[in-house]
Amino acid sequence: MISKNDVKYIQTLFHKKNRDAEGLFVAEGPKLVNDLLTAGLTLKQVYALPAWAEQHPGLAAVTTVTQAELERLSFLQTPNQVLAVVGKPTLSPTPILQGQVGLVLDGIQDPGNLGTILRIADWFGISVVVASEDTADLHNPKVVQATMGSIARVSVWYKQLDAWLAKVNVPVFGALLNGADIHNYGKIKEGLLVIGNEGRGIRPEVLPYIQQPLTIPGKGQAESLNAAVAAGIILSHIC
Amino acid sequence: MISKNDVKYIQTLFHKKNRDAEGLFVAEGPKLVNDLLTAGLTLKQVYALPAWAEQHPGLAAVTTVTQAELERLSFLQTPNQVLAVVGKPTLSPTPILQGQVGLVLDGIQDPGNLGTILRIADWFGISVVVASEDTADLHNPKVVQATMGSIARVSVWYKQLDAWLAKVNVPVFGALLNGADIHNYGKIKEGLLVIGNEGRGIRPEVLPYIQQPLTIPGKGQAESLNAAVAAGIILSHIC
Repeated sequence: MISKNDVKYIQTLFHKKNRDAEGLFVAEGPKLVNDLLTAGLTLKQVYALPAWAEQHPGLAAVTTVTQAELERLSFLQTPNQVLAVVGKPTLSPTPILQGQVGLVLDGIQDPGNLGTILRIADWFGISVVVASEDTADLHNPKVVQATMGSIARVSVWYKQLDAWLAKVNVPVFGALLNGADIHNYGKIKEGLLVIGNEGRGIRPEVLPYIQQPLTIPGKGQAESLNAAVAAGIILSHIC
Repeated sequence: MISKNDVKYIQTLFHKKNRDAEGLFVAEGPKLVNDLLTAGLTLKQVYALPAWAEQHPGLAAVTTVTQAELERLSFLQTPNQVLAVVGKPTLSPTPILQGQVGLVLDGIQDPGNLGTILRIADWFGISVVVASEDTADLHNPKVVQATMGSIARVSVWYKQLDAWLAKVNVPVFGALLNGADIHNYGKIKEGLLVIGNEGRGIRPEVLPYIQQPLTIPGKGQAESLNAAVAAGIILSHIC
């Protein structure tokens, strides 16, 4: 049984200011919720169909709901067995960059793109992502779902990029149209790859910190590639 | 000046059956409309702000509209200067495959994914795409816009894939989880790359026609990559 207040409360978490104030976000579907459990995140409240609840007998704070109730709570067009209110993990103030490859996102606006990029990072074993403050919010439900569970394994720090990059002491690469051909560049063991905004690319304040531009050669007439696709292609060559 | 009938007529073109019956689709924004003009497609009707209309004095069938009128006609959240009703180009019954690389899409459902894949094809100079009949419709306005103009340069044939692949005489590759590592496979000059559906991958009826599975090695825990990202990564290695 759920109350009107449950529905209202979940809906408040659609807004970033409420998620930030409460330190909570919403995740839906068995795969994602299981990935968050495996990663050791705290599920503050879980609303689940009886079948899911029976498979997770050890979990506290599970409210069994009907399909109709789940539909009232869910942000999804097709609710999927379980909705969890999850505590945001606490991050260290700044990530450790030495000895690994990390991503820097300069103004990725589209929640689907951000989720897809985190899924790509996870695929290539990258756990550190630093995003500009105007990048979409990691805990926006559309981003959370688009990560397909990768949010459990990839951390995102929000920073003012130019100030932060000025203090970084690992190599900084950038996805740009006039750089070294990724087919010839070889593999890297350490460094950051900057991916720019969907429309305007990497902003001028960030460009001076890019030591090595990298380019995906094309022979067609498309002006650019989708930001997530570009991230995936470059990482597949340098990782 | 536009009439209520203009608005109603444009709205009918949101539906595939009307687009098919009329042989028309809608494209919006100066970049996309210019790309379609350059490709030689016929603009049956154009609704444009005065500034756009003045820059295209030679065009027939241009109705000058106000921003408010464009908003009434547009499928976009942010209408962009011009909306054109475009005649679908006539395709040959079947594409020529010899001597080039083509893509085969097995049930790509998401219009944004389909548009992004066509943009990737265009980037790599691929002009032939064959899609299963349950793939999203190329002329769905969301697909058209997501191609960012690449729809003007890439053709899509809809086929029953297993029957069609049975008659194909070029090598057939597929994006699969247990195939040859794309880093070691080398470049190809001719062949088809099959990309599967976002959730279920390549369907069982199509699998027997794949002569060479290709795999993007990952070291993280993500179960899969987005279909468009996988297409982009594989093409960047084999093209």
